[in-house]
Amino acid sequence: KPDDPKLLEVANRVVAAGANLVGVLAHAGESYGLSTADALVKAAENERSATVRAAETLRAHGHACPIVSLGSTPTAHFTENLEGVTELRAGVYMFFDLVQHGVGVCGLDDIAISVLATVIGAKPEKGWVLVDAGWMALSRDRGTANQKHDQGYGVVCDEKGRVLEDVIVAQASQEHGILAIRAGSGKSMPDLPLGSRVRILPNHACAMAAQHDFYSVVNGESPEIEARWERIRGW
Amino acid sequence: KPDDPKLLEVANRVVAAGANLVGVLAHAGESYGLSTADALVKAAENERSATVRAAETLRAHGHACPIVSLGSTPTAHFTENLEGVTELRAGVYMFFDLVQHGVGVCGLDDIAISVLATVIGAKPEKGWVLVDAGWMALSRDRGTANQKHDQGYGVVCDEKGRVLEDVIVAQASQEHGILAIRAGSGKSMPDLPLGSRVRILPNHACAMAAQHDFYSVVNGESPEIEARWERIRGW
Repeated sequence: KPDDPKLLEVANRVVAAGANLVGVLAHAGESYGLSTADALVKAAENERSATVRAAETLRAHGHACPIVSLGSTPTAHFTENLEGVTELRAGVYMFFDLVQHGVGVCGLDDIAISVLATVIGAKPEKGWVLVDAGWMALSRDRGTANQKHDQGYGVVCDEKGRVLEDVIVAQASQEHGILAIRAGSGKSMPDLPLGSRVRILPNHACAMAAQHDFYSVVNGESPEIEARWERIRGW
Repeated sequence: KPDDPKLLEVANRVVAAGANLVGVLAHAGESYGLSTADALVKAAENERSATVRAAETLRAHGHACPIVSLGSTPTAHFTENLEGVTELRAGVYMFFDLVQHGVGVCGLDDIAISVLATVIGAKPEKGWVLVDAGWMALSRDRGTANQKHDQGYGVVCDEKGRVLEDVIVAQASQEHGILAIRAGSGKSMPDLPLGSRVRILPNHACAMAAQHDFYSVVNGESPEIEARWERIRGW
């Protein structure tokens, strides 16, 4: 908190202990609870002004404090002013995901990461299609559970990445996922024969990616794998 | 289902398609909802008898069906009769976890897997101690949430693996966990200074292990790492 006397006290202690104070860092985690552009613009400005004020307080007391670092993908996307900021950390920004879609940060078409799964069974009497991707592939992240649209364990697309309207991963066990029509939808399940493949968009890109060793990079709708990116480990 | 005519129909189709029918396989997933020894013994016998009857039906119609395979750690632990069974698959059996403890399958002391975490902060006014293990280390599995004792994201032990009574990982963000006293407990938070280390027992051994690349094997309370086991990948 920029006005808390502890800010300066901590900085002085850090320096007295022989460490190098290089700057201040914030993460506007509360932005994930918002869902309108107005509120996100305000949250971004609040994050910026509080962090810059903290840096100014430290500078006024003799600390150089060269780095002013902001985080959070929602505020990074809606910021209108970055005065005084030297670094923007926005982890999900490069992939986006269903949580960000629910916050209003991106469209479904902007989500650039998915799990490719194969249809392995069906229970037509329950309206279920079974795929070989459960929470070991999708993660257990249910970050959309408290949003306006609960997306289950993910939104289902065809193999080319085109959204199958109202089809979600309704349930997930360790190795298997159950595709079903979203509750309350008037749609019926599209034809997904055994062996056909679907792409599942994640609730949370970080959590889904962490379940895998590498990324297979494709370009648009082409199935050709153009590159293999190893995942960076450790946190 | 052993009495369903589809059992024989599927077997005949498998063989007609040129495949080799080697046996039958069951997983008593419903056993995870139980919590008494009596109910678990009954579930185990139900699993066994249904699976053996399925094999006998197939054999009566000319299929050799040499393998009769059962699963589920709770039923494997409480079975009193394995007549006719050739294979027992019980994945969590080797480590156990808090879900199994909640079902009544094991004691806390039987849990042989934990995440070693370091204390990195505290908010005494909230009764919180912060550690460098969030859901990226512990998984998002909240398998005890609907059990009698909700264990949050894990039960906290000292570095030697001795349970700190009523201390759980109450909240988890991506990289950080919040240790706190279980709601309703009369205990107060033990002294956990910055830099001290704790061991966190998992809700679900499979989900926690899948967040890591390898196992560091220790013997009892000794901190010495005796072996490094690579994790088997794919599912």
